[in-house]
Amino acid sequence: MRLRNKPWAEEKLKKYPQFVVPDPEKWRGHWQALFGNSNPLHIEIGTGKGRFISEMAEQHPEINFLGIEKQPSVIVSALDKLIEKNRPNVKLLNADGAKLREFFAKGDVERIYLNFSDPWPKKRHEKRRLTYRTFLQLYEDILADGGEIHLKTDNQGLFEYSLQSFSEYGLLLKNISLDLHRSDFSGNVMTEYEEKFSAQGQRIYRCEAKYLNAPGALQG
Amino acid sequence: MRLRNKPWAEEKLKKYPQFVVPDPEKWRGHWQALFGNSNPLHIEIGTGKGRFISEMAEQHPEINFLGIEKQPSVIVSALDKLIEKNRPNVKLLNADGAKLREFFAKGDVERIYLNFSDPWPKKRHEKRRLTYRTFLQLYEDILADGGEIHLKTDNQGLFEYSLQSFSEYGLLLKNISLDLHRSDFSGNVMTEYEEKFSAQGQRIYRCEAKYLNAPGALQG
Ligand SMILES: C[S@@+](CC[C@H](N)C(=O)[O-])C[C@H]1O[C@@H](n2cnc3c(N)ncnc32)[C@H](O)[C@@H]1O
Ligand SMILES: C[S@@+](CC[C@H](N)C(=O)[O-])C[C@H]1O[C@@H](n2cnc3c(N)ncnc32)[C@H](O)[C@@H]1O
Repeated sequence: MRLRNKPWAEEKLKKYPQFVVPDPEKWRGHWQALFGNSNPLHIEIGTGKGRFISEMAEQHPEINFLGIEKQPSVIVSALDKLIEKNRPNVKLLNADGAKLREFFAKGDVERIYLNFSDPWPKKRHEKRRLTYRTFLQLYEDILADGGEIHLKTDNQGLFEYSLQSFSEYGLLLKNISLDLHRSDFSGNVMTEYEEKFSAQGQRIYRCEAKYLNAPGALQG
Repeated sequence: MRLRNKPWAEEKLKKYPQFVVPDPEKWRGHWQALFGNSNPLHIEIGTGKGRFISEMAEQHPEINFLGIEKQPSVIVSALDKLIEKNRPNVKLLNADGAKLREFFAKGDVERIYLNFSDPWPKKRHEKRRLTYRTFLQLYEDILADGGEIHLKTDNQGLFEYSLQSFSEYGLLLKNISLDLHRSDFSGNVMTEYEEKFSAQGQRIYRCEAKYLNAPGALQG
């Protein structure tokens, strides 16, 4: 994501602690206390300008959402959307997704959304891809049993790679779509990147990958 | 595949027992005796007119190939190619792939090729797809440990379905390509259908699915 120079961004984030969680470590193991209910928590890593997470929160009041984005100059746009809509079930975290273990205990999270993650096409950058096996291990350490990753991307190489990485890790692949916008998938909420790439005629790829706890659950 | 009326087809197949195996049950458990060597056996189910299997045999003399096709009027075209090239490492079987257990014992086959299999798009025909779980069980019963399915298709729905079916069955996905002809995959041998569909600008999808014997081998 292109970075504009926004020195005021970090200041602004601090002014809205009700939307941008200032102390995520504090809620480790009891995020439901922060949201004031016992609904499941879905997080997005690399939230960008927040269109997805804010619209999902609107459509699914029964879920708590947390959008994680490392760039202050980008997440401020997501903050603006949250201020405008003022919903209780969605918050932001200005942090690096590599530090998830510091913020979440095993079982805190039911679902992880990865939308148009940076593809890192060079083989030597494989470890940076958010579907590399060390990330899959990281997600396992915070997800509830049976938790899922929901991935969307326009990038063919990242999608091929991710399917294989999920398979190697032993995750169950579900609801694969090789052309989301011409499929019968309903309830899709577009992200900023999705809007842009699909307007250019690019296909959007999507899949779900489920962590299985019990052996034999593969058939489930 | 469109069927032309070829009443002479079955007669012709019988005239070439050196190319069209007349008694497959007889070789169950010892196909190497038929080929006169101990090379691995790769089979194709739904060989059609035989371009793939005959060219593969030419390029890989170290492998024994067997093309299985149920339609006599179609497999005669494959026979013509075998007569012309006269190679010792490729034969045909005019039979239904659903009967594989009658022809092969566990471990007889190292690899199964599924090229442009009939997609059976209707949900009520799911059981007829060659990647439905009962077929995956059938393949398991004839494949050697670590054996593989190599699948190619132009059909998006069949490909999405097959990836999920392989995953559910616990197979390891490898070498997924969502656009084979614009990938760096080398050594591709085209089938008749592949030639036709790619000339129409259709993408070709490809993947490999590996049967894992030892638990934990998923990481391998
Ligand atoms: C290509 S953009 C996609 C943004 C948005 N998901 C969309 O679809 O419009 C990827 C975003 O992920 C963020 N990002 C990349 N790695 C991250 C990490 N480890 N933790 C948090 N955010 C990350 C980037 O800063 C960027 O904003
Ligand atoms: C769509 S054609 C593809 C032919 C060839 N593989 C190609 O790519 O050009 C599918 C072929 O599979 C054959 N077939 C379908 N089910 C089969 C089965 N159970 N056993 C053997 N052949 C089968 C059909 O008769 C047909 O010739």
